[in-house]
Amino acid sequence: MNKNEIKIFSPATVANVSCGYDVLGFCLDTIGDEMVVRKTDRKGIYITKIEGYDLPLDATKNVAGVSALAMIADAKPNFGFEIEIYKNIKPGSGIGSSSASASGSVFAINELLGRPYNKTQVTDFAMKGEALASGSEHADNLAPGIFGGFTLVRSTSPLEVLQLPTPKDVYATIIHPQIEIKTSDARAILPKTFPLKDAITQWANLGSFVHALHTSDYELLKRSLQDVIVEPHRSQLIPHFAEVKLAALAHGALGASISGAGPSIFALSKGIENAKNVEKAMRNVYSKTSIAFETYVSKINTEGIREI
Amino acid sequence: MNKNEIKIFSPATVANVSCGYDVLGFCLDTIGDEMVVRKTDRKGIYITKIEGYDLPLDATKNVAGVSALAMIADAKPNFGFEIEIYKNIKPGSGIGSSSASASGSVFAINELLGRPYNKTQVTDFAMKGEALASGSEHADNLAPGIFGGFTLVRSTSPLEVLQLPTPKDVYATIIHPQIEIKTSDARAILPKTFPLKDAITQWANLGSFVHALHTSDYELLKRSLQDVIVEPHRSQLIPHFAEVKLAALAHGALGASISGAGPSIFALSKGIENAKNVEKAMRNVYSKTSIAFETYVSKINTEGIREI
Repeated sequence: MNKNEIKIFSPATVANVSCGYDVLGFCLDTIGDEMVVRKTDRKGIYITKIEGYDLPLDATKNVAGVSALAMIADAKPNFGFEIEIYKNIKPGSGIGSSSASASGSVFAINELLGRPYNKTQVTDFAMKGEALASGSEHADNLAPGIFGGFTLVRSTSPLEVLQLPTPKDVYATIIHPQIEIKTSDARAILPKTFPLKDAITQWANLGSFVHALHTSDYELLKRSLQDVIVEPHRSQLIPHFAEVKLAALAHGALGASISGAGPSIFALSKGIENAKNVEKAMRNVYSKTSIAFETYVSKINTEGIREI
Repeated sequence: MNKNEIKIFSPATVANVSCGYDVLGFCLDTIGDEMVVRKTDRKGIYITKIEGYDLPLDATKNVAGVSALAMIADAKPNFGFEIEIYKNIKPGSGIGSSSASASGSVFAINELLGRPYNKTQVTDFAMKGEALASGSEHADNLAPGIFGGFTLVRSTSPLEVLQLPTPKDVYATIIHPQIEIKTSDARAILPKTFPLKDAITQWANLGSFVHALHTSDYELLKRSLQDVIVEPHRSQLIPHFAEVKLAALAHGALGASISGAGPSIFALSKGIENAKNVEKAMRNVYSKTSIAFETYVSKINTEGIREI
């Protein structure tokens, strides 16, 4: 018999991973939202509680509600769901806040329904919620949350997500400077076209990064973690980006770049000690400024969203 | 004791493999040049015989000579080398004719010297010869010939070649229509810049292709073998390209695209029977035209250049 209630952890995620703009992401473990979802007699989706951040309770205006509504429109259960959201990931931080909500609700409902949908289908429903936040259907934060580990979104239409291997010693460090980057600014600062030679550099590095994940080649991960397309532009919107990146690399990071559309900056390191040293180095940069910040060190979460 | 003479087979290669323009290549087995290289008392490089095609005997004007001269300038042996070239790969065919010459001579000399250079260094010397043919230093045909199998050139400066895994049932079909495409035309037809969304599609596919090679996922190889950047432009220079590609796909090919800068067209298939069916389908297209053509079916040569 299916359960009537489930509590889940929906982790933060990093998208636009350096050479893999728009396609490559990975899943964090030390920060995420919690959600409780339970069946109710009345049909529909009801968000009954949101703690942590001020977000709409109206299911049609909340990303978790929109994705859930899309799923029940397809599944047509003869009951409904109540959702409680305990939000830890600050909206606009660049580590997949809206994705964690959009995917958490449908992951939970799929479990309560007896898992009629596979992970790709769950991601597809979550994209409906994500579209409410970003204006278009993206899966680059959703995929790592739902599949876990490193993921590559080969295509969004039709949706195809590849689960890539995760070398066991890769750790992430995140610094979230508490500034706001408007999505419209992050988009406007990107040129519409790019020189072929830069695109070639980017895909050579992404191909190499995928090979490095398969072969656990940390030196190759390091050489491949370069973004010649987006980072040079968007990093201008993040104060002290260059210093943070340099500090991370100087303290042993394999690479560092913008998380999502920013303002968070991620680094990847081999081993948790390196990741902690990188955290300290990143903190030092922002400590000298008036900008408040949070940092996280996390293993790569290869499981993704999970019941707790 | 090192040998005084060596005979080698230097295979044809396919570069610009679909989604991997400028970085991804693979090595053929059923067509290639043969070369005999022997030590001589007089220092220097002497091309003593060329059969098959009319190419310069002057070592400074022959790609095999130029790469060989670059290697001995570094190795400084107190003897020289004579080179005989038995050319089977037609220059300008798009399956790495100049690369086979440029890499064959330095592969052979490295063997006769007792192998002082690794494969990356051999490729570096071969690039000097390749530059004579193409005007700039490229490794996308050299790397598969020297390393074997599928290769990804992550960077040419410094040179870094990745040897990718080769799923055991992948076979290549090549059709070489006997027309000439001028390198200047092949370059001029490419736009200088590309929309970001097309570049994203390309690197999503290349990342997926690398993953598919690692997982022997033939269906993913098929979905990934798409070139939205170069093929739409350069295919205009190859008469009947669209028909050949469609015929190949209709007869079971995983994918088909331009080999190098053309005019050859390659297809990849799962299994030799499919590859032969694809060959027949490709031949049918050109048989109805006045254009002469050659075809080849080949396993992927995972060894590369070899002593015979």
